[in-house]
Amino acid sequence: MDKSATMQTADPELMRAINRFHVLDTLRRFEPISRVEIGARTRLARATVSAIVSDLIAEGLVREGLADEVAEGTGPAAGRGRPRIMLRMNPQAAHVVGIKLSLHQIAILVTNLKAEVLLSLVLPVRTERIAPEVIADLLEDGVRNSVAKAGLRLGDILGIGIGVPGFIDHGAGVVTWSPIFGRAMPAFARMVGDRLGVPTIMENDVNLVTLAERWFGQGQDIDDFMVVTVEHGVGMGLFLNGELYRGHHGLGAEFGHVKLGLDGPRCRCGQTGCIEAHAADYAILREAARIIELPDVTDAFAAHQAIAEVTRLALEGDERLAALFTRAGAALGLGIANLCNVLNPARVIVSGAGTRAGSLLLDPLRATMETNLISALQGRIDVLVEPWGDDVWARGAASLVLEGIYRAPWSRVDRPKALIGA
Amino acid sequence: MDKSATMQTADPELMRAINRFHVLDTLRRFEPISRVEIGARTRLARATVSAIVSDLIAEGLVREGLADEVAEGTGPAAGRGRPRIMLRMNPQAAHVVGIKLSLHQIAILVTNLKAEVLLSLVLPVRTERIAPEVIADLLEDGVRNSVAKAGLRLGDILGIGIGVPGFIDHGAGVVTWSPIFGRAMPAFARMVGDRLGVPTIMENDVNLVTLAERWFGQGQDIDDFMVVTVEHGVGMGLFLNGELYRGHHGLGAEFGHVKLGLDGPRCRCGQTGCIEAHAADYAILREAARIIELPDVTDAFAAHQAIAEVTRLALEGDERLAALFTRAGAALGLGIANLCNVLNPARVIVSGAGTRAGSLLLDPLRATMETNLISALQGRIDVLVEPWGDDVWARGAASLVLEGIYRAPWSRVDRPKALIGA
Repeated sequence: MDKSATMQTADPELMRAINRFHVLDTLRRFEPISRVEIGARTRLARATVSAIVSDLIAEGLVREGLADEVAEGTGPAAGRGRPRIMLRMNPQAAHVVGIKLSLHQIAILVTNLKAEVLLSLVLPVRTERIAPEVIADLLEDGVRNSVAKAGLRLGDILGIGIGVPGFIDHGAGVVTWSPIFGRAMPAFARMVGDRLGVPTIMENDVNLVTLAERWFGQGQDIDDFMVVTVEHGVGMGLFLNGELYRGHHGLGAEFGHVKLGLDGPRCRCGQTGCIEAHAADYAILREAARIIELPDVTDAFAAHQAIAEVTRLALEGDERLAALFTRAGAALGLGIANLCNVLNPARVIVSGAGTRAGSLLLDPLRATMETNLISALQGRIDVLVEPWGDDVWARGAASLVLEGIYRAPWSRVDRPKALIGA
Repeated sequence: MDKSATMQTADPELMRAINRFHVLDTLRRFEPISRVEIGARTRLARATVSAIVSDLIAEGLVREGLADEVAEGTGPAAGRGRPRIMLRMNPQAAHVVGIKLSLHQIAILVTNLKAEVLLSLVLPVRTERIAPEVIADLLEDGVRNSVAKAGLRLGDILGIGIGVPGFIDHGAGVVTWSPIFGRAMPAFARMVGDRLGVPTIMENDVNLVTLAERWFGQGQDIDDFMVVTVEHGVGMGLFLNGELYRGHHGLGAEFGHVKLGLDGPRCRCGQTGCIEAHAADYAILREAARIIELPDVTDAFAAHQAIAEVTRLALEGDERLAALFTRAGAALGLGIANLCNVLNPARVIVSGAGTRAGSLLLDPLRATMETNLISALQGRIDVLVEPWGDDVWARGAASLVLEGIYRAPWSRVDRPKALIGA
């Protein structure tokens, strides 16, 4: 639907919300910062800044303190030898829980307002063979336990964000399909939220990493970037024109099923030539099994161990196995170059367990990408690697909740989307 | 750069601008409409609506009149037998000029506030062999002549929008590269504007068609759509999250240079496997010359005539030539499907002279696209054809100026972009 139909009209409340966002955002990005500097950066009147800051202090979101060093008197705002009152975010003002459901494990994190991890818990569980109600039970116990260990009570938790692979209808907040559930699971977020009495939201896992990069990572300074994740599957998150891009049907960026030509290897989705069929873990294992003897990889645990072993052998010098990563990197590089030619992002961030292969994967990725960019873009799009860890995903899930605090009042995140299948 | 750094903070002026946008936008979309209905749709107070409408009437943008038929008394707003005062946009309140520069011609249009064409002029000129100053001279004469013939004076013209193929840095408003100039032409818009004393802006031609679809065409009701144009080259315009998407470097969507695999036919850009090398006019002519005898196609006129002739023969039943369009359609369909898998638009609009081939091109396009969409998207993305005419482009150029009148005050169109080469 047309966005203008859902935008709120202006009223004094919206004005205050806009100004509050600007003050909070300026604080978050430039702390420690004085009231005068906030006024200069936001171009808000001194009285307006003071009133908003007073509110933020009263809410506990912001704290006052002296500048670490006495100002040197070089700027107009720096009184000679007079210590300035500086403002900082109070990272302990709010806490959230981030959860990432994978096929082979559940990761739970407790973070503060700045997505700094206070406590993490990883449960090695093959989620796909467990009933959703049991997964919800495990999450309940895991969250209760983690929150207590972090020295907090459930009442201190502002919200829970859950990341899952699959299709999430963000507007309706439901799982349309996930490999973990094998079907639609519209009630899962409520199932977890009800058990804990804490507001709970779900999102596609790669979108969460993208949000985390935006709020706390390598996408803080730019409006247009893409995140590519390589592991069981190949995922993508898009941040375009300053917003997470979710698409018309909310189906996310199915980069893994972009086809490199009309022929090619068969993908587990049933089609052929998909990038996943070249570059995902399962594709590499399929080829590796023709080269070395591998244990049966019929479940998520075995696959996880097998790809780690194949990666280790390739890194140690097995050239036939290394060639599989070269091929995977080239497939990713071509796919990324094609999208860059269309979307012209400032940056590409590569993450996921697949980055364990390091330059074996990333060198051919970068080389093939560069060759296939239009000449005007060659040498101008950074490829950065987000070092991989279980907490990257869960930190993203925490970002989903934190976004509610930081979010600009004009953002369209809540805009209704067409329901899947509607 | 981060969008929040450039958003204006809220003040009463911004509030008024936001409310004015909502009233104007509601008027444009639902006219004829009463003040009460505007209030109901915008949720603005009656007094606010009345004040804004009074301003719009004073500015000549809006006109009052009686409802065409007496209201039937079915709604709360319809007084029994009492004629309502209805409001309409006044299409004659503003006039603009749209210009499209092509390799083989210059099209000039005069339109009103609703992009309705009052007068059009097409100059058959091979622009690439003429100096930019001479093109500017031709535009000056053409615009003066067209405006006079439309019964207007230059002072009545709010602005001139010029569409050119190539790379346009929209933030700086300069042509970074265009096949017409063969180089950067930073001063061209000013060159034209100075000759006529009318504000003049430039934009990539496909972006203009996209804007025209948004404001006046088949994209009015949706926030996410893509436009594909097929002629000398293959172009793309993206409307994402309710905004024209220009990318970080402002290079537009170079869909024509997306590669279908690591091999493939050579493209005029010097790379291989580009969609253009499969589907653009020059690619079809290259293959057609192996099948039938064609006159030399060394310039834009000859190419224009040759592709028309090849299309005619294929439509009349030459199966070998028809196969070239099948191949082109399949290449476009695969490229579009791949992008749809990532961007998940609601609609794809195909335009450009290439659509003359009709179902010869469009049937294989649709079939290949459908086959290569992820299953969750199959059957859910419309492919519409925008009937082709010289005025589609120029109407888009007019939209660029009209956008300034209609544009939402929170839009980020003016956000500075990195300069090319910077």
